[in-house]
Amino acid sequence: MKTNKLKWVILALYLLYTFSPLSANDGYRLWLDYQLIDDSVKLENYRSIISSIYSSEDSEIAQTTAQELASGLEALLGEQIPMSSSMDASIILATAKTITSAISPKDKITQLKENGYYIHSDGDQIHIIGYDDSGMLYGVFRLLSLLQKQESITELDILSNPKIQHRVLNHWDNIDRTVERGYAGFSIWNWHELPEYKDPRYTDYARANASIGINGTVVTNVNANSIVFREDYIEKAAALADVFRPYGIKLYLTARFSSPVELGGLDTADPLDPSVQQWWKDKTAQIYEAIPDFGGFLVKANSEGQPGPQQYGRNHADGANMLADAVAPYGGIVMWRAFVYSEHEPDDRAKQAYNEFVPLDGQFRDNVLIQVKNGPIDFQPREPIHPLFGSMPETPLMMEFQITKEYLGQGTHVVGLANLFEEVLDTDTYVEGKGSTVAKVIDGSLHDHKLTGIAGVANVGTARNWTGNVFAQADWYSFGRLAWDPYLSADDIFEDWTQLTFGLDPTVVSACTELLDVSHEHCVSYMNPLGLHHIFAPGHHYGPGPWIEDMPRADWTCVYYHKADKEGVGFDRTKSGSNAIAQYADGLCKQYKNPNKIDLKFLLWFHHVAWDKKLSTGRTLWEELCYEYNAGVAGVRDMQKTWMSIKDKIDSERYEHVRSHLIIQEKDAIWWRDACLAYFQTFSEMPIPAGLPEPAHDLEYYKSLNYPYSPGIRPRW
Amino acid sequence: MKTNKLKWVILALYLLYTFSPLSANDGYRLWLDYQLIDDSVKLENYRSIISSIYSSEDSEIAQTTAQELASGLEALLGEQIPMSSSMDASIILATAKTITSAISPKDKITQLKENGYYIHSDGDQIHIIGYDDSGMLYGVFRLLSLLQKQESITELDILSNPKIQHRVLNHWDNIDRTVERGYAGFSIWNWHELPEYKDPRYTDYARANASIGINGTVVTNVNANSIVFREDYIEKAAALADVFRPYGIKLYLTARFSSPVELGGLDTADPLDPSVQQWWKDKTAQIYEAIPDFGGFLVKANSEGQPGPQQYGRNHADGANMLADAVAPYGGIVMWRAFVYSEHEPDDRAKQAYNEFVPLDGQFRDNVLIQVKNGPIDFQPREPIHPLFGSMPETPLMMEFQITKEYLGQGTHVVGLANLFEEVLDTDTYVEGKGSTVAKVIDGSLHDHKLTGIAGVANVGTARNWTGNVFAQADWYSFGRLAWDPYLSADDIFEDWTQLTFGLDPTVVSACTELLDVSHEHCVSYMNPLGLHHIFAPGHHYGPGPWIEDMPRADWTCVYYHKADKEGVGFDRTKSGSNAIAQYADGLCKQYKNPNKIDLKFLLWFHHVAWDKKLSTGRTLWEELCYEYNAGVAGVRDMQKTWMSIKDKIDSERYEHVRSHLIIQEKDAIWWRDACLAYFQTFSEMPIPAGLPEPAHDLEYYKSLNYPYSPGIRPRW
Repeated sequence: MKTNKLKWVILALYLLYTFSPLSANDGYRLWLDYQLIDDSVKLENYRSIISSIYSSEDSEIAQTTAQELASGLEALLGEQIPMSSSMDASIILATAKTITSAISPKDKITQLKENGYYIHSDGDQIHIIGYDDSGMLYGVFRLLSLLQKQESITELDILSNPKIQHRVLNHWDNIDRTVERGYAGFSIWNWHELPEYKDPRYTDYARANASIGINGTVVTNVNANSIVFREDYIEKAAALADVFRPYGIKLYLTARFSSPVELGGLDTADPLDPSVQQWWKDKTAQIYEAIPDFGGFLVKANSEGQPGPQQYGRNHADGANMLADAVAPYGGIVMWRAFVYSEHEPDDRAKQAYNEFVPLDGQFRDNVLIQVKNGPIDFQPREPIHPLFGSMPETPLMMEFQITKEYLGQGTHVVGLANLFEEVLDTDTYVEGKGSTVAKVIDGSLHDHKLTGIAGVANVGTARNWTGNVFAQADWYSFGRLAWDPYLSADDIFEDWTQLTFGLDPTVVSACTELLDVSHEHCVSYMNPLGLHHIFAPGHHYGPGPWIEDMPRADWTCVYYHKADKEGVGFDRTKSGSNAIAQYADGLCKQYKNPNKIDLKFLLWFHHVAWDKKLSTGRTLWEELCYEYNAGVAGVRDMQKTWMSIKDKIDSERYEHVRSHLIIQEKDAIWWRDACLAYFQTFSEMPIPAGLPEPAHDLEYYKSLNYPYSPGIRPRW
Repeated sequence: MKTNKLKWVILALYLLYTFSPLSANDGYRLWLDYQLIDDSVKLENYRSIISSIYSSEDSEIAQTTAQELASGLEALLGEQIPMSSSMDASIILATAKTITSAISPKDKITQLKENGYYIHSDGDQIHIIGYDDSGMLYGVFRLLSLLQKQESITELDILSNPKIQHRVLNHWDNIDRTVERGYAGFSIWNWHELPEYKDPRYTDYARANASIGINGTVVTNVNANSIVFREDYIEKAAALADVFRPYGIKLYLTARFSSPVELGGLDTADPLDPSVQQWWKDKTAQIYEAIPDFGGFLVKANSEGQPGPQQYGRNHADGANMLADAVAPYGGIVMWRAFVYSEHEPDDRAKQAYNEFVPLDGQFRDNVLIQVKNGPIDFQPREPIHPLFGSMPETPLMMEFQITKEYLGQGTHVVGLANLFEEVLDTDTYVEGKGSTVAKVIDGSLHDHKLTGIAGVANVGTARNWTGNVFAQADWYSFGRLAWDPYLSADDIFEDWTQLTFGLDPTVVSACTELLDVSHEHCVSYMNPLGLHHIFAPGHHYGPGPWIEDMPRADWTCVYYHKADKEGVGFDRTKSGSNAIAQYADGLCKQYKNPNKIDLKFLLWFHHVAWDKKLSTGRTLWEELCYEYNAGVAGVRDMQKTWMSIKDKIDSERYEHVRSHLIIQEKDAIWWRDACLAYFQTFSEMPIPAGLPEPAHDLEYYKSLNYPYSPGIRPRW
C-alpha cells in the first residue's frame, strides 16, 4: 500500500507541475526547494527514524523552528510528522539552557557559542541543541539540508558555531522601491502598503536568510533618506521587524547624518552639539519603543556627497560615537563605513580610506564596527585586499562584500562570487606575521575582538527568483555560508548550493559546480584582466568605457585608473608612483612591489608596464592582454557548452533562463574584448596577435554606444 | 481503482499546497486557476464526454489553441486528453474556412465574424468553430471557463462575435521599468534583457489577455520615448511580438512625435515636411520588417508638454494622417488620443478636447481612430461622459478606460471598475435620438463605422498577482469582457470573475460579487461625492488635496474644479457658467441643466450650489456632503464585514491580503472624509450634523501630510 500511495503522490506531483503552464520551476523556492525524497530506500529509512518532534522551547523563534522542521519534513518525507510532548520523540529540539543532562554529550554542549548548534544522533533519536533559540533554528535548517542531500542521519555529530557575530545584508533600496545597483527588479519592500500589508514575501525572505545563518538586515540604502525616521516610517519598519524577529533577524536602518536638520528642524547636525546628541537619543528611544530588538545604524558619511561630521570640523569617530552613545543603552551597534574619499582629489583614491581611518584607531566606542569594502577602490571584478584590514588593531573591522554584481555583469552574467570572497578572506595581511589572513581580521581572532561583523550588499529584488539570474542565488547563499564560516572553500559551497537547487544528479552537480567555479576568472579575463580596473562605462557600470576622461573629477574617469600611454599601461602604485603599496604590511608589499614577480592578476593594479615587456608567460604585455580578453570569451563559450550538456536534466524554465543569459554573457564578453582592445590598441599600436579575431567594429562605434536605461539607479557615479 | 487514484491525487495536491510555505495561493494564475473538478459526478460526466481532441488547423495560433485546451483539460479533469487525427474525436477544433459541411448547423457558422466563435455540442461531440484561428482560441477559453464553472456541456449552442474590433491594453510603462500610474510594482517588460531573454511571464501575460479576448497591446507609455525606434529596441519589441503572436495579440508602440528630430537628426518634425514623412515611412518599414503583424502607433501629441503637429502650425489630423499613411500599406492603424488641453488655460478644461477635435471630423484617414477618455477631465472616480462621444459622426472614436486606478485608491482599494465602465457605456448620448448609447458609438453601430476600438490603461505590474490588489484582477478581466461585448452587465462579469478566481461556493460567490458591486459607489462617496472632482493631492493623486491652489496653471489646482466659496460649491457649467453642457446633445443636456432635477451624482460637476440649499433628499447640500462622506466610510466597513464573513472559505494568503488592504481602505476613507469636510467647512461654516463624527484633526494637520514616495511616476501633474 505504501508504495502504491507513493506512486500516486509522485504522479500527482508530476501532473501538477506539467499541468500548469503558469508554474514551472520559477526559482522562487531557492535552495529550500524541498522535494519528496526520490530514493525509496532512503525515504523508508528516514521515515523509520523520524516519526515525531519534541521541542523544549516555546519562544517565537522556537515556534518558527518547530514549524520549519515540521513543514520541511512533511515535504521531504511525504507524511506529517506530529509534535509530541514526550522526550521519547524521534527529534528533540532544545537549547543549551534548558537541556537536561541526559540528552547529549555534555562536553559538546559546553562548546556551543551564541547562535551555535549541535546535532547528535545515535540511530534512535536526533538531538538538535542550540546555544540559544536561533541556534536551534539554524540546526533545523542544517538537518533539513542533510535530508535534501540524502545523507545518512543515523550517526550525526555536528557542532557548529558561527565565527562572526553580525551577519548582515545591506539593501541599497530606496524608499520609492528603486534599488541602487539592483539588477533583480525593484525593492521587495513596499513601504507604501506597510505597516498594514505584510507581503508574505517578507517571511520567505527572512526564512531564506535564516536558513544560511544571516541574522541582520539593513533595509534602507546607504545613500540614506531621513524620512525613515518619520513616525509613520518607524511604524512601517517595525512591521518588517515583526516579520523578521521569529527568524532571528534584526532590523537595522541607515542613518542620514543630516537628519536632525532635515527632519528635526535643528540648525546643525554637529555631533558634538548637545541638541544634536539629544535629537538622536530621542529618535533612538522612539525607534526602540517600536522595535525593541532594533539592531542599530549603518552610516555612509562624508562620502560621495553624503553629509557627515567633517562638515562641522569633526571626524568619523566623533560622528560614529555620537550614534553609538544613542544606541548603547539598548545594546545596539553602529556600522560606520570606511568607503570615503575626499572632496579634494587625492593622487590615488586607493589610499584615501586608510589615510583617514588609521589615525582614528582606538578612538571609537565599543559598539562601533568600521565597515570596509573588500578592496580599496570599489567592488571591481578583482582587487587586492583593502589595506585597512589588519591596520586598525584597536578597532573591530567588518567586511563589506557586494553580492549584487555592479561591476561583474550585473543581473545577466553567471559569476560565482564565492571565489572572489574566498580569495579576499584567504589573503594574508602579514600584519602579525604569516597567517594573518583577512578572515582572522574579520572574525576578531587576529586582534582579539569580540564584536565582529560581515555585510553583503544584497542582490535581492522583485524578480520571481529573487536574484534575476538563477545562478545569482548562489552568491546570496555563498555570502551566508562564508559569513558563518569564512574558512569554508568556495568549491564546497558551490556543490552544496547546486545540490539544494538543482538536485543530486551527479552530472548536474558537477556541471553546475564547474560553471560556477570557472566563472569568476572568466569574467575578470573579459572585463578587467591583468589588474586593470575601473574601466567601466560611467553611471550604470555595465559595459566598457576605458576611454572615459571627461568627468567632474579625475578619479571618476577611467583613464585615471589605467593610465595607458604610448609606453604602456597600468597604475604605478609603487614608490616611484603613488606608493599605495606602502599601506600594506611588508609581507604583502613584497609580493606586489616587483613587476617581475607579482602575480599577473595584480600586475597593472600596481605597475605601469611597457607594452612590449615580456611577461613570465613568454608573451609581451600587449599579447597577454589580447590573449586574456580572448580567454574570457572562450571561457563563456565553454560555460555555454557545459550548461547545454545537462539540458535533459534541468526543467525547461530554468534551462531556458540560464541559456538565454549565457547568450547575453557571450555577447557582452565579446563587446568588452573588442571595445577594450580597440581602445588600448590606439596606445600600443601593435597588431592583434595572429589567430585572434580583430575587433568587430572600430573604436568610434564602441564609444557611440549608449544605454541610458540600464538597470540600477545611480544618483551619480 | 479510479476513485482510489483520484483520492491520492487529491491528497497529493492538498499536501503539496499545505507543505509549501513558499507557495500558497499567490494569485498568479488569475482567473485561469484550473483546479481538478471537485464534484465527482460532474467530473465523471466530463470525463465520459471528453476523451480526445482533433484540430483541423496547424497555424501558430491553432497550436496554442490545442495546447491550451489539452493542458486546461488535464488540470480540470485530472487526466491527459490525447490529440487525435480522427474527426471522431470528442472535441473538434476548426475554423469556418476549413470546416466540412457535415459538422455544425451552417446557419450559425455563416453568422461568424472576425475573431468570433461557435461552440456546439449534442452530447457526443463538442465543436469549437472559430471564424478564424483567434476565434478558435477564444472558443477554447470559453469552453474551459464553462468547465471551471462546472456547467453542463452536453447541449452547448454558443455563438459569440466580438462587438469591437481592436481590444487593446495601453501600458504606461517607461523604458526604465517605472510605470506612470502603476500600482502593482514595476513594468513587466525587462527591456534590458530583451531580445535574448523572454521572461515566461510574457507568455502568461499573453495567455491571460487572450482568455478574455484582448487582441492588442501598446507596450510603451503615451508619454513616449523615441528610443523605442532605435534598431536594438525594435529588435527587443520584435521579441515581445513573437511571444504575443501565438496568442493572437498584436504589438503596438507609442510614437513620440519629435522622433525624427531626436532620433533621426532632422531639423523638424513638421508632418507636412516630405523628409519627415519619409523618415516615418522608412522607420515604419523597418518595424514591419522585424514585426510583420505590427499593429500601429498610439500617439499623445500636443498634450501636457508632449510634442505634436501644433508646434509646426499643423493640426491633429495632419499629424495623425502622416503616421496613418506610413502604416497603411501594412494594414496598420493609428490611435490618436483626444486627451489634449491647451497651453493656454481655457475657461473650462472640460470643453477643450471637443473644441479642438469636432472641427476636424471627417478629415482623418480611414485607418485612424481617435481615442477618447471616458470623461472630459481625467479618469475621476465619476465623470459624465466625454462630450466627444457621438459628436464626430464621420470619425471612428475609440474608448479609453483606465484600468489602473490612478484616482480610485490606486493599488490598495477594492473598487470594482466594471460598474464605472458600464455606467459610461450605457449612457445615452441622444445624438441620434434616444438609445444612442456610448456603447453604440464605440462599437461603430451608431454611425456605421467598421473600424472600432477600445483601450484600457493596464493595471499590470511585477506584483506576483499581477495587479497588486487581488480584486484589481477583476478590473482587468472586466475590461476584456466589456471590450468583447460592451452590453454585458457588470453584475454578471463580477459573478463570472469570482467563480473563476475564488471557486463556486455560493457564499463566497455572493460575498465577493457584492463586495465588487457596492465598491465603486462607496469610493465615489468617500472621495468625490455629489459630482465633486479633481480634488486630489497633486502629483501622486492618492489622497485628498482640495486646498491645492498654488500650481503652475490654474487648471492643475483643485480650487479651479470645486470653486468652493462662502455661498456654495461646484463648477457652474451651465449657460450662466462655462456652458460646457452645450457640448452635449439636447437629451442629455436636459438631464444636466436643472440643478433641481439633475441626478445628485453629477450635481456639483455642473452646478455651483448654495450650502444651505435643500436637496431632493430633504437635507441641505452641506448635510448631504457630510452624509455622503460618512456613507462612504460606512460602506468600507460593510465591505470588511462581508469579507470577514467568508474567512473560512478563502485560502489564508488571499484572505490576509484582502483583509489588510481593506484596513488601508478604511483608513484612507476616513482621511478623505475628515480632510475634505474640515476643508469645506471653512466655507460652509456649518456644523457637522449631529450623530456624525467630527474630523479627527484640524485642517492644518491634513494639509501638512506629505507622501513623496507614493507609487506611480508622475513626470508632472
